Amino acid sequence: MERGIIPRKIKGFRDIDADLNELRQKIISAASKVYRSYGFEHWDTPMLEYADAIGKYMPDEEAVDQGVYNFRNPEEEPILGVDGNEIRDAEAKAIMEHQAVAMRYDLTAPLARVYAERLWMDVKKKQVMETNPPLFRRFQYGPVYRYELKLVPGRYREFWQLDFDSVGTKDVAADAEACIVLSDALSAIGMEKDTFIVKVNNRKVLKGFLASIGIDDDEQEGAVLRVIDKLDKIGWEDIEKELGKGRTDSSGAEISGLSLSNTLIEQILNFLKIATGVDSRKEVIARLQKLTKGNELAEEGLEELIKMDSIWDNLGFDEQRIIFDPTLMRGMAYYTGPVFEVESLLTYKDRKGKTRKIGSICGGGRYDGLVENLLGLKVPATGASIGVDRLAAILQMANPDEVKAQGPVLIAYFDDSLLNEYHKIARKLRQAGIDTEVYCGYFKGFRKMKKQMAYADKKNAPAVILLGGDEAAKGVATVKNLKLGKELSTSISDKKEWISKVQKEVPLGELVEYMKEHF
Amino acid sequence: MERGIIPRKIKGFRDIDADLNELRQKIISAASKVYRSYGFEHWDTPMLEYADAIGKYMPDEEAVDQGVYNFRNPEEEPILGVDGNEIRDAEAKAIMEHQAVAMRYDLTAPLARVYAERLWMDVKKKQVMETNPPLFRRFQYGPVYRYELKLVPGRYREFWQLDFDSVGTKDVAADAEACIVLSDALSAIGMEKDTFIVKVNNRKVLKGFLASIGIDDDEQEGAVLRVIDKLDKIGWEDIEKELGKGRTDSSGAEISGLSLSNTLIEQILNFLKIATGVDSRKEVIARLQKLTKGNELAEEGLEELIKMDSIWDNLGFDEQRIIFDPTLMRGMAYYTGPVFEVESLLTYKDRKGKTRKIGSICGGGRYDGLVENLLGLKVPATGASIGVDRLAAILQMANPDEVKAQGPVLIAYFDDSLLNEYHKIARKLRQAGIDTEVYCGYFKGFRKMKKQMAYADKKNAPAVILLGGDEAAKGVATVKNLKLGKELSTSISDKKEWISKVQKEVPLGELVEYMKEHF
Repeated sequence: MERGIIPRKIKGFRDIDADLNELRQKIISAASKVYRSYGFEHWDTPMLEYADAIGKYMPDEEAVDQGVYNFRNPEEEPILGVDGNEIRDAEAKAIMEHQAVAMRYDLTAPLARVYAERLWMDVKKKQVMETNPPLFRRFQYGPVYRYELKLVPGRYREFWQLDFDSVGTKDVAADAEACIVLSDALSAIGMEKDTFIVKVNNRKVLKGFLASIGIDDDEQEGAVLRVIDKLDKIGWEDIEKELGKGRTDSSGAEISGLSLSNTLIEQILNFLKIATGVDSRKEVIARLQKLTKGNELAEEGLEELIKMDSIWDNLGFDEQRIIFDPTLMRGMAYYTGPVFEVESLLTYKDRKGKTRKIGSICGGGRYDGLVENLLGLKVPATGASIGVDRLAAILQMANPDEVKAQGPVLIAYFDDSLLNEYHKIARKLRQAGIDTEVYCGYFKGFRKMKKQMAYADKKNAPAVILLGGDEAAKGVATVKNLKLGKELSTSISDKKEWISKVQKEVPLGELVEYMKEHF
Repeated sequence: MERGIIPRKIKGFRDIDADLNELRQKIISAASKVYRSYGFEHWDTPMLEYADAIGKYMPDEEAVDQGVYNFRNPEEEPILGVDGNEIRDAEAKAIMEHQAVAMRYDLTAPLARVYAERLWMDVKKKQVMETNPPLFRRFQYGPVYRYELKLVPGRYREFWQLDFDSVGTKDVAADAEACIVLSDALSAIGMEKDTFIVKVNNRKVLKGFLASIGIDDDEQEGAVLRVIDKLDKIGWEDIEKELGKGRTDSSGAEISGLSLSNTLIEQILNFLKIATGVDSRKEVIARLQKLTKGNELAEEGLEELIKMDSIWDNLGFDEQRIIFDPTLMRGMAYYTGPVFEVESLLTYKDRKGKTRKIGSICGGGRYDGLVENLLGLKVPATGASIGVDRLAAILQMANPDEVKAQGPVLIAYFDDSLLNEYHKIARKLRQAGIDTEVYCGYFKGFRKMKKQMAYADKKNAPAVILLGGDEAAKGVATVKNLKLGKELSTSISDKKEWISKVQKEVPLGELVEYMKEHF
């Protein structure tokens, strides 16, 4: 068969319609305003980056990290050495390569690149050192990309995030502030206070504790953290098994365990459950202090939590908004201190009617090593991200009716000789602040009233204005209130009565006033 | 030398800082509001598309079009036949390929893909035909990509556009409306009426005219149109040469001419110059009618211009806003009828001090063949695009001071024991609508006042609030008015006087009120 050109999207990509765009913009605009009010400034970076500059391609590796949507750049370019100069061959010719480029997979890695790029020369000249990195606070939003081969429903390769970060501060006041920013942003977006909670942990406390019971090499520690990170998905019982002898999952697959001793497992579970049923942040800290006494790292971590708690208390952010959760991991390995996550307390019914939790909608934490690869300098940083599309999906589930984008008033097209009149009315309505469209579908048989009404319906138009030759002669227009029509369609079954309520003849001279009053 | 990981961007890409983002958002938000008021709804499409689905890769060609930023998709996928099904080999196995994908190079091609994708099945089932394509009016904004090898200053591979289109209408009322939408949008963005003009032409008129003088095969016609399209760049004299024997350009390169006869050249130039010095749209039409009498295509084109003129007259859009320009081509070959362009009448001085025109900032036109490749159906459409980044650059040139993003009020950090007080003040100020940041650069020697002031300056902070131990004991804070400070720095040379005007001690209890009043 001949090869065809078929209109379609790449797997995992989607078009965003007016309803979803309206939600996205609402989220972005409300949250951005909050971010800005804290002094974060709006930056943007390219969609496409060198894979190595966003940390996803190391010189000694064959391939770009899995999960990164990457390509080879179509043009050949010189390879750069550690000093930033071109690497040359024996004949002093620059060695060329199609370099690995990648769609940005998040907004944090490009931030690290921006920060490092601006400082690179200064660091080489020793004008900037670890003792005096400049402070940079920015927010950014837009699509990010993941190259996922298996796509479950609701997961995409392109989705929007909305981040804010403070780079160049080791003060955990910035971490405490980040939790408040998330809370304020979600409120601004319209989420009620009791529908979400900010959960906070400090990796230092858990790491210190694990070290104090003998789990202190990186590999073993990492393995334990990865198991704990699954708690939300698999529950306490399976965590216990995975720390011990392993388990068989529901599909029958064997999951090997870490083979820790029963004593160790008990100590770990005891630590993780220490806040169960305890709301008070101060009480959680007191219990953790008891359990980790003498471990320097854990004590440092607890001091940080105490400072954060004090800032929240001072601003009235009590345990109804922010709690400590010693089980919170946040998967990403690069977090080095406080981590935070916002959990939605809303639920939804899945296709089988089962009530399900929505879970995490925002997350963040402190990452003090992110620019090190690029700059040869440790720069402390902290920040967080709102999953815009995830949040939009939640708002859509919660209020399916409220999130329909409002369409324009439609002026139906009856008569060529009235074209100028249609456009004149439309302009006056727009000047009065009413979005108005003059129907222009203009084809054989295409001006049929039914088609125009269907078009208005599909666009969620609040009203249609009808003006034909007879009406024009009488100096009136008929206004059909589609919004009211929908509302009344369930309560009024008599068609005549329905029409009498929904349709109004309005003198042309009063039309703008009438529309302003009703729409 | 060892290979390095250098923080840098791909050639032709750039970071967008707070100032430029503010401008971009201002343009997008003002113009979107206008687009929406005409009934265009907001859609978005992926950054990455199959190259064939956006018309940049034909099955019988080896490579994707030049100028398109394209790659091979990392995953292998089946090749589809004209019926949309997988093409299979002799053993019935689907033939797999790394398909050509491309960064979207504009927003029109993805629109065609969206429209075609939604209708594809209906067209196959003959439920949609050329007589009844559905009307679809959408706007979209975001980055588009060009793979340009030679990058002149100010040109990028990634830049933003802001489009609106009506697909499924052959009514030139939609074209007339598009010109008004552009005009309204630019006004909403803040451009003064006398700083831009909408220029309109109809390709049908010129094509008809050329046919009437014997230039009627596609190739010759195309060659003539391409020469005429250069008018703005090379001027009348060189146009005449390129239609004739050719010329030598300033670099010494030979440009071969079309070798038309002197009579033909004279006729063409006569046609193109017909509106020179003529403002009145009606007069231009009258002259064109005389010149093209008897040619059906030209007469059809003039009828369309007459209808458009009447709509503009009716709405008060006279020749100070919209003019006819028979020389206007708009390069893109896919335009089939009316074309339009907004020319900025502002000028700027280049590096050599020479005054230069800015030229075209928006453009569009009617394209009735765009979805044909994808759908096997001609669907009439018209639309236009604002070059967001180009417009932003113009606004920056025109008002360099006005386009600095306003930063937050900065609360300087002096004393750990006042941390909670800083955050409390900041929260109160935010609640009063004043963006406020508590300085959190927190490193050895990093709380130096000078560094904090430099940070405030760089962020364009309007004020800094100073609150140290002594001030706290007195129950006051010092407010430093940076905005006023800058203004007075030229007129007041005495430092004491300057400080007395710029710095104010304010009781803490009155701080919010004071700030509300002054910032």
